[in-house]
Amino acid sequence: MRTNILFITLLVSVNLVFAQTNEPQKQLRIIYDEALENGHSYQNLETLCKKVGHRLSGSEGAEKAVNWGYELLKSYEFDTVYLQPVMVPKWVRGKEEKLSATVSGKKIDIKAKALGGSVGTNDVLKAPLLIVNGLAALETLTDEEVRGKIVLFNEPMNARFLSTFHAYGACVGQRGQGAAKAAEKGAVAVLVRSMTLKYDDEPHTGSLWYKEGVKQIPAAAISTKASTELANWARESEGAIEIALEMHCKTEKEVQSYNVIAEMRGSKSPNKIIVFGGHLDSWDVGEGAHDDGAGIIHAIETLRLFKKLGIRSQHTLRCVLFMNEENGNKGGIKYAENVLKSREEHILAIESDRGGFTPHGFSVDATDEQLKKLRIFEPILNEYDLFYFRKGYGGVDISPLKNGKVILVGLVPDSQRYFDFHHAETDVFENVHKRELELGSAAVAGFVYLFDLIEANQLPTTALPLKE
Amino acid sequence: MRTNILFITLLVSVNLVFAQTNEPQKQLRIIYDEALENGHSYQNLETLCKKVGHRLSGSEGAEKAVNWGYELLKSYEFDTVYLQPVMVPKWVRGKEEKLSATVSGKKIDIKAKALGGSVGTNDVLKAPLLIVNGLAALETLTDEEVRGKIVLFNEPMNARFLSTFHAYGACVGQRGQGAAKAAEKGAVAVLVRSMTLKYDDEPHTGSLWYKEGVKQIPAAAISTKASTELANWARESEGAIEIALEMHCKTEKEVQSYNVIAEMRGSKSPNKIIVFGGHLDSWDVGEGAHDDGAGIIHAIETLRLFKKLGIRSQHTLRCVLFMNEENGNKGGIKYAENVLKSREEHILAIESDRGGFTPHGFSVDATDEQLKKLRIFEPILNEYDLFYFRKGYGGVDISPLKNGKVILVGLVPDSQRYFDFHHAETDVFENVHKRELELGSAAVAGFVYLFDLIEANQLPTTALPLKE
Repeated sequence: MRTNILFITLLVSVNLVFAQTNEPQKQLRIIYDEALENGHSYQNLETLCKKVGHRLSGSEGAEKAVNWGYELLKSYEFDTVYLQPVMVPKWVRGKEEKLSATVSGKKIDIKAKALGGSVGTNDVLKAPLLIVNGLAALETLTDEEVRGKIVLFNEPMNARFLSTFHAYGACVGQRGQGAAKAAEKGAVAVLVRSMTLKYDDEPHTGSLWYKEGVKQIPAAAISTKASTELANWARESEGAIEIALEMHCKTEKEVQSYNVIAEMRGSKSPNKIIVFGGHLDSWDVGEGAHDDGAGIIHAIETLRLFKKLGIRSQHTLRCVLFMNEENGNKGGIKYAENVLKSREEHILAIESDRGGFTPHGFSVDATDEQLKKLRIFEPILNEYDLFYFRKGYGGVDISPLKNGKVILVGLVPDSQRYFDFHHAETDVFENVHKRELELGSAAVAGFVYLFDLIEANQLPTTALPLKE
Repeated sequence: MRTNILFITLLVSVNLVFAQTNEPQKQLRIIYDEALENGHSYQNLETLCKKVGHRLSGSEGAEKAVNWGYELLKSYEFDTVYLQPVMVPKWVRGKEEKLSATVSGKKIDIKAKALGGSVGTNDVLKAPLLIVNGLAALETLTDEEVRGKIVLFNEPMNARFLSTFHAYGACVGQRGQGAAKAAEKGAVAVLVRSMTLKYDDEPHTGSLWYKEGVKQIPAAAISTKASTELANWARESEGAIEIALEMHCKTEKEVQSYNVIAEMRGSKSPNKIIVFGGHLDSWDVGEGAHDDGAGIIHAIETLRLFKKLGIRSQHTLRCVLFMNEENGNKGGIKYAENVLKSREEHILAIESDRGGFTPHGFSVDATDEQLKKLRIFEPILNEYDLFYFRKGYGGVDISPLKNGKVILVGLVPDSQRYFDFHHAETDVFENVHKRELELGSAAVAGFVYLFDLIEANQLPTTALPLKE
């Protein structure tokens, strides 16, 4: 009973603070107005995409991206802007891949993109094609059946999942582990159906992971269309399909790169830090517009909104453009190491790495106690069509920060179009929508604003648990 | 206290029905699976867009659309498929519009689209340009200032509104009433800035309404880019800007057309009708893909899902492809007249006319008592990311059905991209996303399915009011 009375008292006091002043709601409206009417999101993303372009860790593009980020953050005159050194892997694609299939005596050219981290073919590699419907199907085959073959992993993403991220998660194993699993059975190379629900002719690249002690064999992505056609031809043709693959990719020595960091010091508790970011690197195709240009734009714009609107947060706000999320997460790891070393206290970390689409809400990795606190401002964010507020994963870059204390949050935008562009040549500025991008910036800024307020005022937690 | 006990009892019984059988949730999942894995939405929309194309009331395209709809519904072997005759206006654009501005002696060509219903110019109409920032700004001017001028209504849509429909509503008066208001002050023609937040060179057409006793003057839409540039030139140039406008549009005699209707009879209460639809006509530009190809696809697919999955509804389900929403709503009015005449009882009407984007939920025009009932299945729909469940407008086609008894519901998709394409050449199939469209079909079907169930079982209402 005591709990209930306490709870009611606390609820009333919260309502009083909000109802009497109405300040949080007003300020949130001002944040949204600035983001939508005078926002820098779209213009900044255009510059990143068109002046820098793609920016794989260790590449010239990544170096340009670091400079771009540093100069841009400097231009906003935040309290501090600096580079945090981090060693990153360097994988280079080399000359364009060549892939062809010979079906019933006819040679057909197929678009291919080596998977990130793959070894090259050393001249042209020729072998018969073996098609399997994902990792589980491979497991049912004997070594004899697989030996000497080029294996095509042709499991499609499952359209039944509402969130395309769930469909991706259920199927991406064939891209990540396919080469190692097939090599264990004697395959000489693998092809992987692109991780997208879109039926088109774009190969989507992405990381693979070799296994210690298992031969490293070449691996390339092909489009959903090419995968489907190969499977059709295999059914229809009499003899085996012969594949010829030529890839010149290789891994070079690690190189120096940087996380790019800017901050605005808190007015009351500067030693408590709210961090938000995305990753500055991208794959070496397209322009990394959604992945993760949008995410770093959300972070930069969040800090800019506070500065421009003269909102002095009570905790320190830090924007981090992480390097190397795509193939190593060395930036995220280095950042967390430094936090530990310098004994910084982080209270909240927000990552945006699911594209620049209309935001639906937030995925929250936190204790039940912390979740209760966030529930206080859920109704305020609901007014901005941010309805998704559930327990879940924060993101790759911020994951090394996890320590049971800091709250990790991932921005959750609409996912339907994300994998149309993910890791493909089509991930370009033209496929990002101005207002959808701006709404993402406002959503992150709004969450940071309300969290800073609640945390500083020691406002009470409410009773409702987050949906899971 | 009695109320409370009753309420708790009812709640428990509801939960028992759902918890014990879990049937509604399972069936809903099956509906979504079919829509996403084997749906006809995308293919049907492609056929409508590419084989029929745009289809303004009274045009050859509209006639083709009626045939297309009838044949398609017939092919699904629903219980009944029929045409409902309705007389519709016929406005024809004629030869392409010509518009130019002479600025400081230099002639600049501008893309223009006559507004629907506009009179033509009768040869070339030349007059000086007067730019006003919307209807309110016009009101501040004297007749003398306006007389003999071509008025450009240049009020932009307000980016601050989260829903672009609200931004549209706040600003579309200049398109609908601009010509009449300007004519009252002696203007000879009007140009209207396109109703979109996108900055590009596409004119967006749409209806205007002349006023009895006021001279009918020509009116055309120009792009946001052209409007902005004209305003800039007007500021910079010394003399007045001279406009030359030539339009050959005219209104012809009414012609016969049809609503296209299909139904599946209810198993228990066939005399109670659940109707869902969109409008079959479109403007005479683009392909009417989002407006309202998507809406009629949602309706057709809803009925198909019930038929294909063998879900026998307890009330009669009726799919209506309404004719003439864009410039008269004659189809919606005729449909409601027939309902009244034949004393049909409608219990629910759902309209989809806000595009084929990711659905967010439903806008509900109903009594408080009815709203309570719908709240029962809100949590079930939440699981499908349908979070928006608020009091609001149903839609134009179904509005004549309003009688205080029937519940009117509008599907609410994400609105950010809708006005990029609305009434413009860019409203084509390629700008509709397969999964987003399919999710809309599943959302309408899901709502119908749950409503049919709750209504038939006389399930109790819950206590929570809908948000407003």
